[in-house]
Amino acid sequence: MEGQVPQYDVLIVGQGAAGFSAALYAARYQMKAVVFGDKFGGETAIGGAIENYPGFPSIDGFDLMLKMREQVEGYGVEIIDEKVDALTRLPGCFQAETEEASYRGKSVVLAVGRERRKLGLPMEEEWTGRGVSYCSVCDAPLYRGKTAGVVGGGNAAVEGAILLARYAEKVYLVYRGDRLTRPEPIALRMLEDTPNVEVLLSTQVTALQGETGLDAVSLDRPLNGSHELTLDGLFVEIGADPRSKLGQDVGVALNDQGEIVVDKLMRTSVEGVFAAGDLTDGSGNLKQTVTAAAQGALAATSAYELVSTHPCRCQCHAMGYPLEAAVV
Amino acid sequence: MEGQVPQYDVLIVGQGAAGFSAALYAARYQMKAVVFGDKFGGETAIGGAIENYPGFPSIDGFDLMLKMREQVEGYGVEIIDEKVDALTRLPGCFQAETEEASYRGKSVVLAVGRERRKLGLPMEEEWTGRGVSYCSVCDAPLYRGKTAGVVGGGNAAVEGAILLARYAEKVYLVYRGDRLTRPEPIALRMLEDTPNVEVLLSTQVTALQGETGLDAVSLDRPLNGSHELTLDGLFVEIGADPRSKLGQDVGVALNDQGEIVVDKLMRTSVEGVFAAGDLTDGSGNLKQTVTAAAQGALAATSAYELVSTHPCRCQCHAMGYPLEAAVV
Repeated sequence: MEGQVPQYDVLIVGQGAAGFSAALYAARYQMKAVVFGDKFGGETAIGGAIENYPGFPSIDGFDLMLKMREQVEGYGVEIIDEKVDALTRLPGCFQAETEEASYRGKSVVLAVGRERRKLGLPMEEEWTGRGVSYCSVCDAPLYRGKTAGVVGGGNAAVEGAILLARYAEKVYLVYRGDRLTRPEPIALRMLEDTPNVEVLLSTQVTALQGETGLDAVSLDRPLNGSHELTLDGLFVEIGADPRSKLGQDVGVALNDQGEIVVDKLMRTSVEGVFAAGDLTDGSGNLKQTVTAAAQGALAATSAYELVSTHPCRCQCHAMGYPLEAAVV
Repeated sequence: MEGQVPQYDVLIVGQGAAGFSAALYAARYQMKAVVFGDKFGGETAIGGAIENYPGFPSIDGFDLMLKMREQVEGYGVEIIDEKVDALTRLPGCFQAETEEASYRGKSVVLAVGRERRKLGLPMEEEWTGRGVSYCSVCDAPLYRGKTAGVVGGGNAAVEGAILLARYAEKVYLVYRGDRLTRPEPIALRMLEDTPNVEVLLSTQVTALQGETGLDAVSLDRPLNGSHELTLDGLFVEIGADPRSKLGQDVGVALNDQGEIVVDKLMRTSVEGVFAAGDLTDGSGNLKQTVTAAAQGALAATSAYELVSTHPCRCQCHAMGYPLEAAVV
């Protein structure tokens, strides 16, 4: 029934730092907001200890995200722990579909992050935060004086290895190809100037070893006579795929990495659709909890400005008018 | 003596959320960093309770900034509690002058915020956070069911009054001019649609009254027969002046509001100079603790990328070469 689809000022999709921050700001603007998501806490929640979110010297990422969720719940914001499967653009309005129901909003904040590419090895997921990491900027300082591996052959892998080498005693950069691909020339030169990074080309990690976390990896070819390489940590830097499906549903512009293009105020190319966090190009390659949180605040502010200055958005539907009669 | 000027990878100027976040990230990149500033904690520290920094449901701004400072100190970053009076651009290098000494850096992060314009009334400073506020986005939710005043006639004042009216029972918008200036037409229309805002034109607040915080203000002309107006809070929204002096010293581009123009990665128009927080145009009109913190992280990351890929920056000076011989 047309009239029974619940209506909101803003549909916030995603339960990471960007989504919860957007919800916090939306609530404080007195917007009627709802937060969707089936991945509580986003990247922050699964990364183990966080030591670079200003204000917390060290906090478990899951706990930090619980605090953000509770902060949002304190404002009475509705949270629906379901995935949004599809988003439709209606005149002056957007409709989200979960498996259970439909929801309409005058505006949308997309904050569903990105999917880190994984090696696909047993225990990789379980040991994330316990020796397996996908973020060298976040976790490099944990490896002072230790031995770390980095998997990958692109810019992120090379830069990750160089940063790790500032802390670790020894860094192995493991890449299956026979030469590194796509690192910038300057990064390659820096790599050459970093003696404690050893590059293992034409080599693959075939297994993760350990008891309660990573202790070593198996390689598909021997290094110094052994297929086993003892490591305190392994950084998987083989890329990430922005979850841009919902953005594509409503036609927002993406960059060549598949990220949603946003301006400084987190506006996308489609009026009424805002985006925040790791699925956007809002902070370049630096995808952090604090950048996602800031972008969520900005996205909610932009949504508030749109909705508060266009009080009729979505109204036609609420009043039972046919869609065609709606004022865009 | 030329050779005795201490050298850093990055000179961070400012001790607010942007400066401390930049220092945190710089330290984690293993940069040699120094933080200057004579205003501990910036705007956050003086605003009273903060309820919109994601992760802390409510925290005193001063305490939040202490946490950030301690977090930075935990990395051994040098903090010099002095104002930087001048900044000079040397070939491939920058020099900062405090009253006591000179310092050189391969890069600079400017994070000195902006100066809120004040009414200039007795007790205005002392009662900031105790009834006097300069940020309606931050503090509006504290005024649910209460009576608040807003001073100003521009866009920020009008939008502040409208947001406050979503919480407060009654809002007085007090402006000395005989008509509101420069609010956007849409904001004026919204103001007309907000019945609990009463606009008092050609009126000035001449005194703040109260015991331990603001209880009332004196007006220069009577309202309903009285020169005294009882208020739970007064929002001063008469503008702010970015502290752009140091940016001007090194020639960075400013926008028409005097803010330092930055790109998404907090790069200014001058290579090696980055800026973060309220003195930039990085987050439009939304100047928040979380946006400043994110910008600090980005500025430090950009500085790291520059410095790590240009290892010779500033080296000539360190080696005692004359400035003219320095490689830019």
